[in-house]
Amino acid sequence: MAATLVSKNRSFQGHQFVYKHPSSTTNCEMTFGVYIPDHQPEEKLPTLFYLSGLTCTHANFMEKSGFQQFASKHRFIVVHPDTSPRGVDIAGDSDSWDFGKGAGFYVNATVEKWSKNYRMYDYIVKELLEEVAPKVAPIDAGRVGIFGHSMGGHGALTIGLRNPQKFKSISAFAPICNPISVPWGQKALGGYLGEDQATWKEYDASEVLKRYEGPKREILVDQGTADNFLGQLKPETLKETDHVAVEVRMQKDFDHSYYFIASFMADHFAHHAKALV
Amino acid sequence: MAATLVSKNRSFQGHQFVYKHPSSTTNCEMTFGVYIPDHQPEEKLPTLFYLSGLTCTHANFMEKSGFQQFASKHRFIVVHPDTSPRGVDIAGDSDSWDFGKGAGFYVNATVEKWSKNYRMYDYIVKELLEEVAPKVAPIDAGRVGIFGHSMGGHGALTIGLRNPQKFKSISAFAPICNPISVPWGQKALGGYLGEDQATWKEYDASEVLKRYEGPKREILVDQGTADNFLGQLKPETLKETDHVAVEVRMQKDFDHSYYFIASFMADHFAHHAKALV
Repeated sequence: MAATLVSKNRSFQGHQFVYKHPSSTTNCEMTFGVYIPDHQPEEKLPTLFYLSGLTCTHANFMEKSGFQQFASKHRFIVVHPDTSPRGVDIAGDSDSWDFGKGAGFYVNATVEKWSKNYRMYDYIVKELLEEVAPKVAPIDAGRVGIFGHSMGGHGALTIGLRNPQKFKSISAFAPICNPISVPWGQKALGGYLGEDQATWKEYDASEVLKRYEGPKREILVDQGTADNFLGQLKPETLKETDHVAVEVRMQKDFDHSYYFIASFMADHFAHHAKALV
Repeated sequence: MAATLVSKNRSFQGHQFVYKHPSSTTNCEMTFGVYIPDHQPEEKLPTLFYLSGLTCTHANFMEKSGFQQFASKHRFIVVHPDTSPRGVDIAGDSDSWDFGKGAGFYVNATVEKWSKNYRMYDYIVKELLEEVAPKVAPIDAGRVGIFGHSMGGHGALTIGLRNPQKFKSISAFAPICNPISVPWGQKALGGYLGEDQATWKEYDASEVLKRYEGPKREILVDQGTADNFLGQLKPETLKETDHVAVEVRMQKDFDHSYYFIASFMADHFAHHAKALV
C-alpha cells in the first residue's frame, strides 16, 4: 500500500525521507527511512538496504551513522527499516530489550502468538524491497545490496545470502554470526520459531554461508575488539568457502556503538560501490 | 576542579570522551564532551570549541553531526559543552524551550534570580577553556577556534570576537546574528540581563562585529534557505568591516537541523584548519 511522508530533510546532495505505511506482511503500520541522492527524472540508482540492531528504530542509523555523506558521494539510495512491528501489543513483547519490540531478528515467526506480526524477513525481502520502497525511490532492482549492524548484520548476512538474485553485495558491522550457539540467538529463534532447531539454521549466517552455492560474493565485516557483546557475535564462525570470500577486520579498541559504525562507513560504501556502481 | 570521566568511545583515529565536573562559575555540575585525536605523549593540538543550540545538551553534536571524522582528519581537539546549567531548579527555568534550561544563551546573567548559575559566558571563556579542558586534553592554547549552531552560533560569534587573544578562528551554522532585534534574543537578553538594552549589545553578534578592531578575522557562516527560524537569525545583519571578512553562504533547501550541519561540517573544519593548523 502507499506510503505516507513523515519528514523530509535536505542532506548533502540529496534528501533524507521518512515514510510510514500499513504493512500487509506485519499487519501493522511500519516506518522506514530512505535517503535519495539528487538524480535525473528517469534515472534509476543503485540501492542499499541497511538493517539496524537491537532496540533501534529506523532513526538511529539516520541520525548517528553519518551515512548520508557517502550515499551522496556514491549516489546510492539507502533504505533503512524499523527492527520490528510496532503498535501491536502481544503479551511479552516489551519484557526484554532483546526480544519482541525492537528485536524482530529478521525472521518469519512460526510460533502462533508471534506469527501474525513478526514477519520481518518477508517484510524486508518482499514487501519493502519489491512493493513499497520502489514507489517512493527510483531503485534499480538489478543493483541492490544489503548491510547492517549486530542483529541487523545477522539480517543482512542471512537475507543477502538467501536471496542472491535480489541482493548483489553484502557487508556488516559487528554482526551476530552464529545465533544458534549464543544466548541472544537462542532466545530469539526459540521464541519466534519454536523448539525445532533445524528451522533455526535458515536464520544462522554461518550455517547459511556454509551451504551457499550462488554467484560468488565478497563479504566485508568490521568488528571492534573492545565490543562488550563479542561473545554473542562470533565472527570467527564465518568461514570462507569456494563461493564466498569473507574479510573480517578486527578493529582495535572499537566498541559496539555508532561511533564504531561511523568510523568505517566510508569503507562499507566503497565495498558496495565496487559491486554495484 | 577536576573532571570525572563519564564515557569514552573509540571514534575514527581518536576517542570521544564525556566528562562532568563541579563548576565554580555556574555553581552546579556541568557535563561536556571532548574529542581527542591520537597524539604523541608531549604533543599539543589545535582545538575547537563548539557551542550548541536551543534545547541541546553536550550530546546532540557528538551523536548527530559526524564531526569526529574531520576532527580526526585535521587532528583537532574539539570541546563541546552543555547549553545551560543543569540540576539547579529556578522558578521558570523549565517553562519554555527558549529560556532557562537548555537555553543559557552564553551570557553572564545580571538579573539576580539567574546570576548565581546562568553564567555560560564566563564558564566557556574562563573556566572550561583555561582550567577544566586543559586538564583532560592537550590543548595548544595559542591555536584555539570557536564555532556553533543557532544560539551556539550567536555564542561563537560573540565570544570569538570579544576574545580575539583566545580564539583565533570563528565560524557558525545558522547563527542568531542580531538577537536584540528578534523575539528569541529579546526574551533571553531581557530575562538574563534586565531592561537596560545597552548591556544587550555586548551579546549581539552584529553589534560586536561592527565595533571589532582586533586582528583580522575571516568568518564563515552557512545558512539554509529552508530554515524555519530564518526570521530569528538575520544573517544579513553581519556586515563586513575592515577588520572582519564575512562569508555568508545561503544553502539552498537546507533547514535548521543536524542534517544541514553535517552537510557542511567538512568545510568548517577546513576553514578553521586554514587559520590554526
